[in-house]
Amino acid sequence: MANGAFSAMWAKTAACFLMYRAEDAVAVLDADQAGKTAGDVLGYGGGVPVVGSIDEAFSLRPEVAIVGTAPMGGVLDGELRAEVIACLEAGVDVVSGLHVFVGDDPECLLALAHSGARVWDVRKVRGPFDVSKGNGCATGARTVLVVGTDCNVGKMTVTLELYRDAAERGVDAAWAATGQTGMILRERGICVDRVISDFVGGASEELVNAEGEGKDLVFVEGQGAMTHPGYAGVALGLLYGVLPDCMVLAHVAGREQLKRLEVPIQPLRELIDLHEQLMAPFKHSPVVGVTLNTSELDEAGARAAIEDASKHTGLPTTDVIRFGCASVLDAVLKHLNLP
Amino acid sequence: MANGAFSAMWAKTAACFLMYRAEDAVAVLDADQAGKTAGDVLGYGGGVPVVGSIDEAFSLRPEVAIVGTAPMGGVLDGELRAEVIACLEAGVDVVSGLHVFVGDDPECLLALAHSGARVWDVRKVRGPFDVSKGNGCATGARTVLVVGTDCNVGKMTVTLELYRDAAERGVDAAWAATGQTGMILRERGICVDRVISDFVGGASEELVNAEGEGKDLVFVEGQGAMTHPGYAGVALGLLYGVLPDCMVLAHVAGREQLKRLEVPIQPLRELIDLHEQLMAPFKHSPVVGVTLNTSELDEAGARAAIEDASKHTGLPTTDVIRFGCASVLDAVLKHLNLP
Repeated sequence: MANGAFSAMWAKTAACFLMYRAEDAVAVLDADQAGKTAGDVLGYGGGVPVVGSIDEAFSLRPEVAIVGTAPMGGVLDGELRAEVIACLEAGVDVVSGLHVFVGDDPECLLALAHSGARVWDVRKVRGPFDVSKGNGCATGARTVLVVGTDCNVGKMTVTLELYRDAAERGVDAAWAATGQTGMILRERGICVDRVISDFVGGASEELVNAEGEGKDLVFVEGQGAMTHPGYAGVALGLLYGVLPDCMVLAHVAGREQLKRLEVPIQPLRELIDLHEQLMAPFKHSPVVGVTLNTSELDEAGARAAIEDASKHTGLPTTDVIRFGCASVLDAVLKHLNLP
Repeated sequence: MANGAFSAMWAKTAACFLMYRAEDAVAVLDADQAGKTAGDVLGYGGGVPVVGSIDEAFSLRPEVAIVGTAPMGGVLDGELRAEVIACLEAGVDVVSGLHVFVGDDPECLLALAHSGARVWDVRKVRGPFDVSKGNGCATGARTVLVVGTDCNVGKMTVTLELYRDAAERGVDAAWAATGQTGMILRERGICVDRVISDFVGGASEELVNAEGEGKDLVFVEGQGAMTHPGYAGVALGLLYGVLPDCMVLAHVAGREQLKRLEVPIQPLRELIDLHEQLMAPFKHSPVVGVTLNTSELDEAGARAAIEDASKHTGLPTTDVIRFGCASVLDAVLKHLNLP
């Protein structure tokens, strides 16, 4: 469900789903682009058709409808609301990462009462959680946290790419989803920014222990950024719940200020030192690699930005989408003495 | 209400109230120590009598009963529960900083329905709050945040002492309460560790703007500690909501590990650098002074610990209770160019 907004920019959840789970998608709803395919619009997602109405989507027999956009204020109204209600009436389960909960909406509840459809409000956290015990992952699995210089720098994508490549190399790995889009892909996780602040560490610790069960390695999607005025508390709570064995720092090439804020992003080397210093009381947990989102640069520009960042930080650096994540994954596995 | 537990260690809220607002207390409830005065038990609090039963307390005509202890798990049961219900039945308002809310307890609600007594569950946060805008205090007031090396190092006490001395010197100051004990003293504030993690910065920003209205200086009580696995997210969220103009670091002399955890406390100089580095993207906000709780040392030991810390950090250092806070307050006012 991305009506009126199907694009990588305005329908992040839809786009991420099509990047990583296109085989599970029967249709994308967007009247403005009906007749195209996901591949036409995004450059990935293959032949998944874009349809013009919810009834047309129903004809493809979906089991689940995912709210693929993030409307202003996270509210549920207008066309989207009508589409959600239509799904619930038709017995199609609804998955939503909106701030406002579908399952708290009387009209939605009425609609699903008749059909038996289910709602997963991804941001609704269950609880209670404990305060973090300060043990991180105690299952024997090693952990890698993908941290960022800002919001929207691609932490989830980096996490998934590292996980996929590690699994392809035969590492017995898992990944932990900590935000709504990741959770929709993973079908589980904890939306840590919705947890009461005292318990963010405990919730993160619980999550990483659940994902670490029987695994050798867990990649954890970071949230926020350690110097973001709005989201640093979440970022640090997550860091201390996970207590990772090493970190990867994600950045957008050329971004010098936090998105929508007049706050400078510190030099990468300083941010790396800051993260390592925050981990120092617990363990030696270095940042072992850097990722750059270079999507706004041409190939030569991208290569130059990566070389600059690598020289500045002394660390392997890549754009995981453009050039793959092998160099950074090598550094992770080497640090952890994994094959 | 500190039945069975009236001491500075086991009834922190009661003890703090008697330290700073003894003139408002008519009695302390603790059957084990009935007949003594607060001064006998604590060394401060003067002649406030300790009484042996809630009925005896009622004979002194209290308007408000404060839950002065923090029972294990923050639950409301046993004698304390019976006393709370007796208060509510008698028309005595109840103030509670427990994790479990008096106002959610059906029996308590029934009791107050008859009498008209009111309940203030201090930890129950109202909302919704915004995400922090990253502006800190925009009223024109300067802000000082008292940060700590651990929980229970005396951040609230340091905040109050600095505030009182500043006010005595004629500075038009206020202080902001961010935890339950401080809020009971201040009769307002926000229990930041109970706010959903995404909004800790926004709640802190709102608080400091409210306290800063028409003032020249606001002292803000810190929460948790920046390297505490359980509470660092709260500490950083608060730091970035307040965006203080300078900081004071509170520590317990001789404490080398976090309380109840096997996590070392970093050297003070490193912790000072860490706090200043976290503030660097926003403003030059130095730690201008250090406070040590030296209550476990004799006077010579206290003086030696203070001299050591001052030499190590290069900053004015004091135990605010034992030796007053003048040197640290001087440094605050000098940094802020206040008289």
